[in-house]
Amino acid sequence: MRVVITGGFGFLGRRLAAALLRTRTFGGTPIERLVLADRAVEPGAPPAADPLVDVVHGDLTDRLDEVFAEPVDVVFHLAAAVSAECEADVDLGMYANVDTTRALLDAARAQSATTGPTPRVVFSSSLAVYGSDPALPVPPVIDESTLPLPRSSYGTQKLVCEHLIADYTRHGFVDGRVARLMTVAVRPGTPNAAASGFLSGIIREPLAGLGAVCPVRPGLQVALSSPRRTVHGLLRIAEAERGKGPGRLEGQVPVNLPALTVSVAEMLRTLREVAGEAVADRVTIAPDPAVETMVGSWPAVFDNRRAAALGLAPDASFLSLVQDYLADHPNAVALDASE
Amino acid sequence: MRVVITGGFGFLGRRLAAALLRTRTFGGTPIERLVLADRAVEPGAPPAADPLVDVVHGDLTDRLDEVFAEPVDVVFHLAAAVSAECEADVDLGMYANVDTTRALLDAARAQSATTGPTPRVVFSSSLAVYGSDPALPVPPVIDESTLPLPRSSYGTQKLVCEHLIADYTRHGFVDGRVARLMTVAVRPGTPNAAASGFLSGIIREPLAGLGAVCPVRPGLQVALSSPRRTVHGLLRIAEAERGKGPGRLEGQVPVNLPALTVSVAEMLRTLREVAGEAVADRVTIAPDPAVETMVGSWPAVFDNRRAAALGLAPDASFLSLVQDYLADHPNAVALDASE
Repeated sequence: MRVVITGGFGFLGRRLAAALLRTRTFGGTPIERLVLADRAVEPGAPPAADPLVDVVHGDLTDRLDEVFAEPVDVVFHLAAAVSAECEADVDLGMYANVDTTRALLDAARAQSATTGPTPRVVFSSSLAVYGSDPALPVPPVIDESTLPLPRSSYGTQKLVCEHLIADYTRHGFVDGRVARLMTVAVRPGTPNAAASGFLSGIIREPLAGLGAVCPVRPGLQVALSSPRRTVHGLLRIAEAERGKGPGRLEGQVPVNLPALTVSVAEMLRTLREVAGEAVADRVTIAPDPAVETMVGSWPAVFDNRRAAALGLAPDASFLSLVQDYLADHPNAVALDASE
Repeated sequence: MRVVITGGFGFLGRRLAAALLRTRTFGGTPIERLVLADRAVEPGAPPAADPLVDVVHGDLTDRLDEVFAEPVDVVFHLAAAVSAECEADVDLGMYANVDTTRALLDAARAQSATTGPTPRVVFSSSLAVYGSDPALPVPPVIDESTLPLPRSSYGTQKLVCEHLIADYTRHGFVDGRVARLMTVAVRPGTPNAAASGFLSGIIREPLAGLGAVCPVRPGLQVALSSPRRTVHGLLRIAEAERGKGPGRLEGQVPVNLPALTVSVAEMLRTLREVAGEAVADRVTIAPDPAVETMVGSWPAVFDNRRAAALGLAPDASFLSLVQDYLADHPNAVALDASE
């Protein structure tokens, strides 16, 4: 079995690779090669140093020949331009998110039509497909029957890909599966260009002894998922057999990954409880209308039944989510940041 | 005011052009030029013979420079590949329906960013965006809050364009408006490659003295709109002021044009009443699974409130729809076809 992760050196890509390399199987079948494709690679770093791993370096549309040089059984398509950069540069987002996905789908389809097998294509979509319209406000609770009305180019582009994947799956060109990711927090490392980046930053930076700006009012509710739960959800949806019943994936409707709903105020309160006053005081509230409009357009309360039928549950609490972050990143806390 | 119709020599394009040339205004402002763009043109034929009309001949993506050589105030984007051809050739559909629309939107956006004005882009989408999924059956009554789940590449491509138009409108690149057309019947002329073509054919052909095949079981319900009502709906949505309240267009959610719901059996009964036994007997029922699956996936019962708020009503009855056809096409009935 040959498994590909696009965006394989990204934050989720690395964690997904590590999870696959722990079991060294996909759906019970041994993985012979795990291909990590990315624009920016680090071949020596784990998990890339594992002997099962091949690295494909470059713009994905230019490297599809290499990715499909040997038959591909599964592709996790995580590579994407993120929300704030797509909003600032619609053409960039259309290229990185729509055109690249389409090229990937066509390469997968070409394999189905020639050597086979029909690749399983697992697409990471986003809660950003949802939003409200003056004529149609977003309902208080979202499930997969809710009409997506994106209020960002990023959400639009993800939604377009969802529909292309459903069509290609219906034609039998690929076996497409779509997971809509909640906002993944707490992310380690440095801030990225996602409008939701602050939802990691307001925890990560103070713990590391740095100041952080919270660009939304604390009353705002958000839908979070820890990196662990997010990777678990992607794997579960990828491995699920098709069909009706518990643990199976029915139809082509995307799956919203389970969401933990919290307010920013609750997040800051948890930080205060975990790390003390001095750490929590490193966060400055300074609403930024652009961020508040985009992040505020994303719904926060989800009916998780479709995910639950696949055995997926949200994080238990924001406290457990922060504890996971601390357990996974032992160096996350600056020595002078704890009290 | 310079108004463009893509697919301007198609069936609806000609009728829309004729309607605009009757008033010679758009939204109360005189039309200075009406541009009919199409791959196949008939420059001498009405309405192209009108002195207000310019003809642009060729593949739209190659002719956008010509279309936008002078500022465009309004584009009715009707040019499209139809359902059965898109299902048979996904690449053709993606090119004709998605790539061409995107090129048009980018040309309109370039005008907005330079000389202006921001063009009004009126897009003819389709009820084919709707369909059912094993996990999410289509509800008994459809309105604009219903989740579109296309079961055809044509419906997928139309839906993709809807979302791109909403995003471009949100950015202020265009003023996009989307009308979802019901199955337009009775169409004159010869059958096209639309899967729904038989819904005109089973009326038109027998009246003209020809046999016709009905490829679905007569119990199937369909959502129809006469050419008159369809053109009226497109114009109304194009001319509506934005905002809240009666007659205004609120938000960016598409408008489903009002549907007359009838069964194929009722259509055939009406034909029998209007034209007699011998004419109705020219129809042979021979279900074709491919057509039945696609047309059967389209919903038939609509809640028309959003359209009604814009002053749009469905055809009164299938009888009135047939009578309109006969009034508009005095030569539609073969001399030996009436009894």
